[in-house]
Amino acid sequence: MTDPLQPGTTIGILGGGQLGRMLSVAASRLGLKTHIFEPGQNPPAADVAHRVTTASYDDNAALEQFASSVDVITYEFENIPVAALDRLETLCPIRPNRKALAVSQDRLTEKDFLKSLSLATAPYANVENLEDLKSGLAQIGPDAILKTRRFGYDGKGQVRLSETSDLNAALQDLGGAPAVLEGLVHFTHEVSVIGARGMDGQVACFDPGENVHRDGILHTTTVPAPLSTAQKTDAVLLTAQILNALEYVGVMGVELFVTHGGLIVNEIAPRVHNSGHWTQNGCVIDQFEQHIRAVAGWPLGDGSRHSDVMMENLIGNDVDRVSELVHQGVALHLYGKVDVKPGRKMGHVNHVVGPAGVQQS
Amino acid sequence: MTDPLQPGTTIGILGGGQLGRMLSVAASRLGLKTHIFEPGQNPPAADVAHRVTTASYDDNAALEQFASSVDVITYEFENIPVAALDRLETLCPIRPNRKALAVSQDRLTEKDFLKSLSLATAPYANVENLEDLKSGLAQIGPDAILKTRRFGYDGKGQVRLSETSDLNAALQDLGGAPAVLEGLVHFTHEVSVIGARGMDGQVACFDPGENVHRDGILHTTTVPAPLSTAQKTDAVLLTAQILNALEYVGVMGVELFVTHGGLIVNEIAPRVHNSGHWTQNGCVIDQFEQHIRAVAGWPLGDGSRHSDVMMENLIGNDVDRVSELVHQGVALHLYGKVDVKPGRKMGHVNHVVGPAGVQQS
Repeated sequence: MTDPLQPGTTIGILGGGQLGRMLSVAASRLGLKTHIFEPGQNPPAADVAHRVTTASYDDNAALEQFASSVDVITYEFENIPVAALDRLETLCPIRPNRKALAVSQDRLTEKDFLKSLSLATAPYANVENLEDLKSGLAQIGPDAILKTRRFGYDGKGQVRLSETSDLNAALQDLGGAPAVLEGLVHFTHEVSVIGARGMDGQVACFDPGENVHRDGILHTTTVPAPLSTAQKTDAVLLTAQILNALEYVGVMGVELFVTHGGLIVNEIAPRVHNSGHWTQNGCVIDQFEQHIRAVAGWPLGDGSRHSDVMMENLIGNDVDRVSELVHQGVALHLYGKVDVKPGRKMGHVNHVVGPAGVQQS
Repeated sequence: MTDPLQPGTTIGILGGGQLGRMLSVAASRLGLKTHIFEPGQNPPAADVAHRVTTASYDDNAALEQFASSVDVITYEFENIPVAALDRLETLCPIRPNRKALAVSQDRLTEKDFLKSLSLATAPYANVENLEDLKSGLAQIGPDAILKTRRFGYDGKGQVRLSETSDLNAALQDLGGAPAVLEGLVHFTHEVSVIGARGMDGQVACFDPGENVHRDGILHTTTVPAPLSTAQKTDAVLLTAQILNALEYVGVMGVELFVTHGGLIVNEIAPRVHNSGHWTQNGCVIDQFEQHIRAVAGWPLGDGSRHSDVMMENLIGNDVDRVSELVHQGVALHLYGKVDVKPGRKMGHVNHVVGPAGVQQS
């Protein structure tokens, strides 16, 4: 194991959105600087970063300058171009590692990986053309979702199918991109586990939260989630299994469907996750600091929950509610974005409900 | 009352030390940017600020450019040159106001102000020369401390006197600066209240903490402080009285001696205060965010305590203990300072003891 990063050293972060912003704040608590690499102008993370590089992911000179100015590279999103990663990793360690990125960048690879660990997933089939789609539906049944293998998020790149669907139109909706067909899972609710693994192999998970989506975007996460003791144990153990199998370093979000037959893994995200924002006001060490500790080679911190929290996203015009929310006893987290657009994550609010209660069952 | 600052607007902060650093982080949570004005190179706050001006306080062009680039000016230390304030306030509001600065920049003015509110202070006398010192001692008694009226902090600019002291030497130790003689107060312990007042006149105080000093520098703050219910009420009421009398906007630290005869005000600091660092891990809204909310014209947040905390400063070589502390379940807050010097505040650690308990009496 290499020595932990010392105060004054720099963490490079690919992506300058709100996750990079909150990672940067967490790094500052540990005395570390951050350097943000982001193609867009005025990224949210720039407000709290030591340094910002504005360049595209195919600008090799900028990538090299960035990599040589930092001590470790991490990222706030998984869809980083592979060629950029190839260039960066010759100059500086990337954490979490390439394997975690490869698995999570592609829904089919992800499902195959989960299957290889004997973890339950939705039934799925590879779809490259109409024939694949038809045979997939024959195997899985008509209630299914067709998803692009890559670049999908927040409900984008997905088509819901039923018995009456026009299959050609569905394929066209995805622009002919390689896709995966997923059988619809009948679940009672969705939970997620934010897990962390350090360079020493130590694993720590935050308490699972229950997620509610609206229009395909996370709306609320509530802790504690309604889970039996056995379900909670299962959720934590399978997260640890995934982290260990990937020799992962950092924080990962694992979304799970709770069904009468057990837990089903929906998807994994190799980064801090929106459903872990509650930790900022529910734990001594939040998911952002846990991630920074891991990628900086520090031991993981104490992520135990001291308070029950309901996290609510502020999407698009929801941000107009801030003028009321400031009068309520809630913790606001705004991302400093000036342009309000429908579906754009503008901030979130943590409603601290009270001292940590026992898990419901 | 003016409108609250909106996301994307900028708070100017005079001083780029650890307090400016943590204020900047708090501003980011509310979607606000910060611009730091600091004469020194590589200030700790620069790692998490949107913009930094490196210039001295007599550089009028730099001051004017700074003031015209921000929406409100606040500060992390009270000893800002008066001429700089005169220049800045023509261009931009300064919060907390000049009156708070004038009172706290001068120990004699401060004592006179507290006396005018009928608040108990140590017995004191103005000392401009040897005659004053002799008559002060005759009035107060030989157990006293001679302090410079201005620019004292962390035990600097102070001489402890006793019956055998060489009075001329004591005056020389202070370099002939105007001074105040303070009678020694026999107290059982020291507590401080971190109070806040918004632009709407609303006042909120964090729970008092008990302070222990070492070598004249704050060593630990522990909440809850050992106070009776009546003492706690007194502490909060007198803090509110001070805040209201100054028409104060922002966070203030009020240090109090607890004596058998009641509470005695030791000193006030018109800014976030080292003895309020526990709030970062003990409350939903910490002192830094409370200050930013106030100066930005927002309503104050919920500063109620959810956890009992012992805050410990890491001074000078104490920072070597970080390699052990990272393995303990504590919250580290490092300031990113690379040069370790004796007496230099390098960071602090919040030991979260458990859920908020009842006040001891």
